[in-house]
Amino acid sequence: MDASITRRGQPCYYRLPSVGMLAINDSFLLEGAIYMLLKKYFRREPYYADLLDVFHETTYQTEYGQLVDLITAPEDVVDLGKFSLERHRLIVIYKTAFYSFYLPVACAMLIAGIPYPTDTPPRFTLDKGVVTSKEDPYSVALGILIPLGEYFQVQDDFLDFSAPPEVLGKIGTDIVDNKCSWVVNTALNLTSPSAPTPSPFNASLTPTRLAEIRALLDENYGRKDAEKEKKVKEVFEELGIRKAYERYEEAVVGDVRERIAAVDEEATGLKRDVFESFLGKIYRRSK
Amino acid sequence: MDASITRRGQPCYYRLPSVGMLAINDSFLLEGAIYMLLKKYFRREPYYADLLDVFHETTYQTEYGQLVDLITAPEDVVDLGKFSLERHRLIVIYKTAFYSFYLPVACAMLIAGIPYPTDTPPRFTLDKGVVTSKEDPYSVALGILIPLGEYFQVQDDFLDFSAPPEVLGKIGTDIVDNKCSWVVNTALNLTSPSAPTPSPFNASLTPTRLAEIRALLDENYGRKDAEKEKKVKEVFEELGIRKAYERYEEAVVGDVRERIAAVDEEATGLKRDVFESFLGKIYRRSK
Repeated sequence: MDASITRRGQPCYYRLPSVGMLAINDSFLLEGAIYMLLKKYFRREPYYADLLDVFHETTYQTEYGQLVDLITAPEDVVDLGKFSLERHRLIVIYKTAFYSFYLPVACAMLIAGIPYPTDTPPRFTLDKGVVTSKEDPYSVALGILIPLGEYFQVQDDFLDFSAPPEVLGKIGTDIVDNKCSWVVNTALNLTSPSAPTPSPFNASLTPTRLAEIRALLDENYGRKDAEKEKKVKEVFEELGIRKAYERYEEAVVGDVRERIAAVDEEATGLKRDVFESFLGKIYRRSK
Repeated sequence: MDASITRRGQPCYYRLPSVGMLAINDSFLLEGAIYMLLKKYFRREPYYADLLDVFHETTYQTEYGQLVDLITAPEDVVDLGKFSLERHRLIVIYKTAFYSFYLPVACAMLIAGIPYPTDTPPRFTLDKGVVTSKEDPYSVALGILIPLGEYFQVQDDFLDFSAPPEVLGKIGTDIVDNKCSWVVNTALNLTSPSAPTPSPFNASLTPTRLAEIRALLDENYGRKDAEKEKKVKEVFEELGIRKAYERYEEAVVGDVRERIAAVDEEATGLKRDVFESFLGKIYRRSK
């Protein structure tokens, strides 16, 4: 859908000559296989309908995130005016956090017999975040897992820019691919006319230099050109993206730890250890 | 997926400049909307899980039919050697009959409170057809609706070739589009080396002429060329496709009527009238 050429170093499936647009139907068949497996293993369980609802809901959220991503950062039209940290957050939460972080935990909770609140399913809105209720274990879990998933994707974006390829195991391509990444959005934020001066991560930047950097980003971001990519990387460093990331990481991890500490294990049936272990796998990862 | 240019006289959605490959994600969102609607209106019904299962199963069957259709009749590679009436039947039943004919009736049966046989859902296999049991209303319904759906699609294929555009409301394009239609498959059947001579619908055809016609089909079918389309239409007429269709129609309608007559209304809770009315809407339709 995004006209990608490779995926994890291999040619994208649809680019195989024998596949082409058959890939579209194949993707629907793959999705259908999920429901065959769920039916095979869970049809007789009392929570079967809840399980299907959670999969449907999560699928819809992911598709919504994919749509916003596709219209925000088309591969062929560079328009940084569409980017923002808010937009990035919307994309990341819908496209990644729900299915990667909330879905597996919600499935485990269903299997463990925690009743699903069908009438008031856990809700997320962009302005209010997750509306948690101490009595509803699913909203408590969502309230931890959405920020955790967001953090994971911000890390991913940051490592694409900052990690040495020999550590990361791949070469980052977000800059040339015009990705709506946390890194470029943070750079846009730091160079916006309303940004604070002096800049919090490099006090020597003048308003004139910040305006220059913004123009340079417009000109060089999202181009299949190694020289332009290099220029973008240089101004990312000049803006102090690494420091900005450190500050972000400490803030979000502090918030997630507070949320985990506030879990009422007895009332919800949830284990704080499980969430601590998730966080531990992610915190300060380098690849 | 089949690289179509128009759909019902309008440009295909994906061909709108603002859409393109976004159409793929949009199609997933549309599918997601089905499950939002089902949840909204049926979540509290005792048959909700059965309803979801029936939708998932039917979706899978339709995707399977779409796959077979795509690999049998790609828009750009003409190979009539892949076509056959058996292949046509497989495509038609999976791609059309399950979702257009069985699904709505199965939904109505669930809503009417007829218990769904979760452990032994109605089955269809290409060699055995529908395995009906007089005790299972869903297999009885499937045993009528699959042949009915197959008949409907054969009619559709025949009308694409035979009906005057002013009656049909559109201009048939199956021949130029390389469609694996009932018409071309019947023509291939009548011209195969193992076909009976004299030909059942035109006794004057010699084996030599039949071989000529087959070569002519290979050369002219599936080409975007009005002259070639005309040649194909002429040999379809020469082979007696109209008579072949009449014979097919009377045979399949006879079979469907027998199946409807055999419905045990009391044991199954099904109404013969409903199926008779479906058949009445289709029998000898001209558009």
